[in-house]
Amino acid sequence: MKKRNICVVITARPSYSRVKTALLAIREHPELNLQLVIAASALLDRYGSVVKYIEDDGLEITRKIYTVLEGENLISMAKTTGIGISELATVFDDLKPDVVVTIADRYETISTAIAASYMNIPLAHIQGGEVTGNIDEKVRHAITKLSDLHLVTTPMAAERVIKMGENPVNVYTTGCPSIDLAAEVKANPALDFDPISKYGGVGAEIKIEPGKYLVVMQHPVTTSHEHAQEEINATLDAILELDMPTMLFWPNVDAGSDGTSRAIRIFREKHRDNKLHYFKNMKGTDFLRILSNSLCLIGNSSVGIRECSYLGVPVVNLGNRQNRRDRGPNVLDVDYNKDAIVQAVRHQMQHGPYESDYIYGNGNAGISIAEVLANAPLGIEKVLMY
Amino acid sequence: MKKRNICVVITARPSYSRVKTALLAIREHPELNLQLVIAASALLDRYGSVVKYIEDDGLEITRKIYTVLEGENLISMAKTTGIGISELATVFDDLKPDVVVTIADRYETISTAIAASYMNIPLAHIQGGEVTGNIDEKVRHAITKLSDLHLVTTPMAAERVIKMGENPVNVYTTGCPSIDLAAEVKANPALDFDPISKYGGVGAEIKIEPGKYLVVMQHPVTTSHEHAQEEINATLDAILELDMPTMLFWPNVDAGSDGTSRAIRIFREKHRDNKLHYFKNMKGTDFLRILSNSLCLIGNSSVGIRECSYLGVPVVNLGNRQNRRDRGPNVLDVDYNKDAIVQAVRHQMQHGPYESDYIYGNGNAGISIAEVLANAPLGIEKVLMY
Amino acid sequence: MKKRNICVVITARPSYSRVKTALLAIREHPELNLQLVIAASALLDRYGSVVKYIEDDGLEITRKIYTVLEGENLISMAKTTGIGISELATVFDDLKPDVVVTIADRYETISTAIAASYMNIPLAHIQGGEVTGNIDEKVRHAITKLSDLHLVTTPMAAERVIKMGENPVNVYTTGCPSIDLAAEVKANPALDFDPISKYGGVGAEIKIEPGKYLVVMQHPVTTSHEHAQEEINATLDAILELDMPTMLFWPNVDAGSDGTSRAIRIFREKHRDNKLHYFKNMKGTDFLRILSNSLCLIGNSSVGIRECSYLGVPVVNLGNRQNRRDRGPNVLDVDYNKDAIVQAVRHQMQHGPYESDYIYGNGNAGISIAEVLANAPLGIEKVLMY
Amino acid sequence: MKKRNICVVITARPSYSRVKTALLAIREHPELNLQLVIAASALLDRYGSVVKYIEDDGLEITRKIYTVLEGENLISMAKTTGIGISELATVFDDLKPDVVVTIADRYETISTAIAASYMNIPLAHIQGGEVTGNIDEKVRHAITKLSDLHLVTTPMAAERVIKMGENPVNVYTTGCPSIDLAAEVKANPALDFDPISKYGGVGAEIKIEPGKYLVVMQHPVTTSHEHAQEEINATLDAILELDMPTMLFWPNVDAGSDGTSRAIRIFREKHRDNKLHYFKNMKGTDFLRILSNSLCLIGNSSVGIRECSYLGVPVVNLGNRQNRRDRGPNVLDVDYNKDAIVQAVRHQMQHGPYESDYIYGNGNAGISIAEVLANAPLGIEKVLMY
Repeated sequence: MKKRNICVVITARPSYSRVKTALLAIREHPELNLQLVIAASALLDRYGSVVKYIEDDGLEITRKIYTVLEGENLISMAKTTGIGISELATVFDDLKPDVVVTIADRYETISTAIAASYMNIPLAHIQGGEVTGNIDEKVRHAITKLSDLHLVTTPMAAERVIKMGENPVNVYTTGCPSIDLAAEVKANPALDFDPISKYGGVGAEIKIEPGKYLVVMQHPVTTSHEHAQEEINATLDAILELDMPTMLFWPNVDAGSDGTSRAIRIFREKHRDNKLHYFKNMKGTDFLRILSNSLCLIGNSSVGIRECSYLGVPVVNLGNRQNRRDRGPNVLDVDYNKDAIVQAVRHQMQHGPYESDYIYGNGNAGISIAEVLANAPLGIEKVLMY
Repeated sequence: MKKRNICVVITARPSYSRVKTALLAIREHPELNLQLVIAASALLDRYGSVVKYIEDDGLEITRKIYTVLEGENLISMAKTTGIGISELATVFDDLKPDVVVTIADRYETISTAIAASYMNIPLAHIQGGEVTGNIDEKVRHAITKLSDLHLVTTPMAAERVIKMGENPVNVYTTGCPSIDLAAEVKANPALDFDPISKYGGVGAEIKIEPGKYLVVMQHPVTTSHEHAQEEINATLDAILELDMPTMLFWPNVDAGSDGTSRAIRIFREKHRDNKLHYFKNMKGTDFLRILSNSLCLIGNSSVGIRECSYLGVPVVNLGNRQNRRDRGPNVLDVDYNKDAIVQAVRHQMQHGPYESDYIYGNGNAGISIAEVLANAPLGIEKVLMY
Repeated sequence: MKKRNICVVITARPSYSRVKTALLAIREHPELNLQLVIAASALLDRYGSVVKYIEDDGLEITRKIYTVLEGENLISMAKTTGIGISELATVFDDLKPDVVVTIADRYETISTAIAASYMNIPLAHIQGGEVTGNIDEKVRHAITKLSDLHLVTTPMAAERVIKMGENPVNVYTTGCPSIDLAAEVKANPALDFDPISKYGGVGAEIKIEPGKYLVVMQHPVTTSHEHAQEEINATLDAILELDMPTMLFWPNVDAGSDGTSRAIRIFREKHRDNKLHYFKNMKGTDFLRILSNSLCLIGNSSVGIRECSYLGVPVVNLGNRQNRRDRGPNVLDVDYNKDAIVQAVRHQMQHGPYESDYIYGNGNAGISIAEVLANAPLGIEKVLMY
Repeated sequence: MKKRNICVVITARPSYSRVKTALLAIREHPELNLQLVIAASALLDRYGSVVKYIEDDGLEITRKIYTVLEGENLISMAKTTGIGISELATVFDDLKPDVVVTIADRYETISTAIAASYMNIPLAHIQGGEVTGNIDEKVRHAITKLSDLHLVTTPMAAERVIKMGENPVNVYTTGCPSIDLAAEVKANPALDFDPISKYGGVGAEIKIEPGKYLVVMQHPVTTSHEHAQEEINATLDAILELDMPTMLFWPNVDAGSDGTSRAIRIFREKHRDNKLHYFKNMKGTDFLRILSNSLCLIGNSSVGIRECSYLGVPVVNLGNRQNRRDRGPNVLDVDYNKDAIVQAVRHQMQHGPYESDYIYGNGNAGISIAEVLANAPLGIEKVLMY
């Protein structure tokens, strides 16, 4: 029997670690053939290219496509999306996938969804039905309406997808593959490498010891990009006051990332004698290991809500980026305000690690996704269920 | 007080007549400033450019943008969509609209929706929440998820939009502006012009007298474009057998339109001695007047479901293109099958005109839409309501 | 030894017949591997897709790329060129050619030249150094400046390329491959098929007998596209007056082709009872056979200057499109003026066939080109020779 | 009388300072209307946006267009060029210029040339006919073949343009506008500002005193982009050994700039205790003032050949980037080799300032260019002059 060609399109660094175990499971599945397309910021050095990590993981990249129109403003984001559709149409025409898989809610992912659905290729969406609280929510739910298969992470997400009018037979609750990695790390959590000697980065030559450092990961919020600089400054000032060894990760490409990045660069030039070390990106499991051994994660990344709930890592979650996402008890929400951040981090350090919460999956999502892709009936015609 | 800039993007011939009264009402509204963008197939001669009709109606075109990548296959449709996003981003950046308005469900309309929503411009969608039965349904509902204001035509459509998770305060049931034109025509239905001398066209020099001719308007169905030729041939063969004076309108651009158009051209060269005359396109009210005086409309156009229900024109609706659309008693559904078509047309000719049905509006939609655009609170942040 | 990958990009119908023998020779050459890319109007039905002819000739198409932005105006021509660069960059990146070959001077060919030279791939140009008299001359010579290898058709062309500062070691006078086909036809000129039953077309059911018909092939001239309609009308009126069986070929895509095509369509609807039959396109040798047996070719196609000089076919050449091109005695130049055209055609019919002239080659160009591509030293660095 | 609209397109930082006096003269000219379009890397922060400098100079920007596809490889350069054509076609259609002006030879400038010439707008080229020794030479001469007016900087350049077949009546030797700025600076050369406090930058807090520092400006060479890192390292190592206060300027966007930039960043992190300060970009006259007061310029920028010859600044010119450019006695050419660089810089420091050389103009070029643009006959039809 002919194997199904499963074309997964990765457009950003976080999407890769989020689906890595699914990619490995697809590759291993006897009835599936993995076509891996890397596009947009996932290819670019300055946002942390994932190419090296993918190759380290033994996966083969089928196509690399450049789609990011430089400018980091709203126009260039829109045009990047248009370029992405055009380039992906070429790729899909060449690769002839049986299913295209798109992930989550970043703005470029809609390019994948449109190219596939307009070319009559069944579209599977990973992480539909989630709610957050920013522009990405529009994109995520629009992709749901273009998708034929929904591979969702939580029962609540499944319920929302169905409420939006999708046929329940096409909705599969698989859990989130990022939790699969967290499960691996949790089973063996030792910090078995030195982050600075392994990943370089710049800044203070801090000592990174288990249970003795903080982690910062803060993204600009696209609908308020002018405030990106203020928002990151609140965090940076809080870190200065906390005066703990701290690992900071650069944000992704987005309108406003320039604001955030520039603010970090200015801060860095001004404050040379502190305990901050700056990293670009890291292999997924290394990053989880670092979180697992940290005192607290500060920022607005979804990793704080998802993986950290499974790992029990204390999180200080900033602003409204993760607003309405389902979360465990490990998350403390505060505004982009220096004093509030300092206080919350101190609270979390005092509390220490939390119990694990299985809301986002039990560590088996990658295999479940591969099974659905191998066995689900495929089609492109669907109707609103009401 | 500053007027609101309302940028309406028209991408295809039928969309223009469908919103004409709304455009006129926006232009007349003291608090609104109309920015009219004509794009995609709406500009192209061979699909029936609307430019002349718009100018005849006294409306000024603010921008014309070319976005159709020629090829008439699925790849070129996808790439056309990408080009549209890129070109519209430039236009929106120049025109700085307060609201962008997109219409219905054709594949290019998602370009408007993405460019506007990615540039943080409030997006209003006319004709959301309707159900039909083809690929366009994906596009329509995806646009709903990207839109901030929903200007729907029927109470059932409003209900569906709300069920999909939209906030009821942003959903307005205005009726369909195309019914406004139908109301004008119905008030004064005389066929006061000679179609052939006014619009030319090619084919037999038939006599077009009230109550003595048929009308054909059949579009290719995008997810089965290989069958486009067979499907139109069934209709053409039925027309040959019915042997009545018949006005045929060419289809729009779409994957497969080439199939349909080619089939029509082949048929035309083969059958010179029949009673068919071929038209490209027509001013909206002239077209409605022609329908109003016809014995029956044959095809799969939504005009048969909407305007004809108000006008009471008998319709033989083919295939599944209008499958699930709410309809009045004037519609008889049959397959793309010659004999079935012949029989259904004969039935409708025997029955004669139907009673009016107001399901798609009462003739006041244009003014209602302008009022909503002038008064609705504008914003771009929204969340799923569950 | 690794074969050289030779990627030939065909963007229009006439380019194909112009290089067909070179393509066959490349395919047969033991040290070459042919990569054939079909793009732009060469793919489109309404300009006469070459796909069928290529397949009939037993050549395999490596890639088809859609690049024509519909609009047929100057903006859409410019944008088509931009799209072409972007799409060809993808293709070259995939195919990894050792040499890219571009042909002649149509506006889209510069896309090939830019994509190849910007990607550091050696670029060979067929038909550089020729002079004509329209905008294409800018394009042709600009391509010469981007090219690394010059495969020119006449000694005068070679001299011009060298005068422009190119290194003589990179300039090869191969003759024109279109003459190779003419040589085949001349060796065996019988009109061994019935054009109408083989190619269809529309119009009068004329009888096409050797030595008893005219041929018309007229292209719009891009820098005066408003006049396209007037210019073709002069020809059509002349044909009406001459009242001979006439075969007319539709023009290529270009700004203004709409003008020319529309004028032809209007004429056709108006004058049904004449001796004109309209063809889209034809296999190259069939077309040459038709020319070879015709009384006279009327129009502004370069085929009148090139192939017809070898074949000795009388030509009435219109306007300035071929202005400065080297020509044999078979060509009579007149303006776009009905009376002048009628008079010139009568003169040529009276004169009858001319002696062959070998200015554009001796029938061996295809093989010569393949030899150069196999043996020329390849490089991408060049300097002006003065 | 209607003023001529002169649309100047600037695509990179160096182009702006190179034409600044021409822009000012166009703006002041009573018969001209300046339309200033800023595009490509000229808009991007990380290559040194020129927007601030333009605004400081009191010029108004008519349009900003984003065209750079991120990737910094050869494919993305080609695609950037395609995007540029498409975007500029829109701009030219809106602005309706009487003349479009393009500058020099960077890869994106051919976008301007193609969009203008394909839209039948007369094209003027500044700095045609120059010879350098890299890929840019192809681009420069291809633009010459697309251009209608040639505004060249030296008599030798004029001669080369004419030799390439251009009509001498369209070739004007105006001198280079960059020399106009150098003339201003030479008239009043005092270093009247503190570079670090005015421009920030990063690196050692060196003291910048007249006659006591070096300047480095080194661009990657596009046809050998893999070597970019090695090449800049030779320079950086030489600077370390010379151990003088040194001002280094970051390179422009180009394939390989990533290599150069990354090497600089790595060097900077490794060598914190040296006398290097890193600047992004600077107002043109400030930069010339810095050169004027420096001991020596090291690198491969054309500023060393042009402005420095007029200013008499000693230059150590590296590699083949400026290979065949006409130059004065102030230039010492060496390879990308640490020891050779050290030795050459020492030689130049010992020699001290040179006599001025007027090969690139006498300080009046801006006004001359404006006069030509106001008075030259405009047309778009041209032929090869042989």
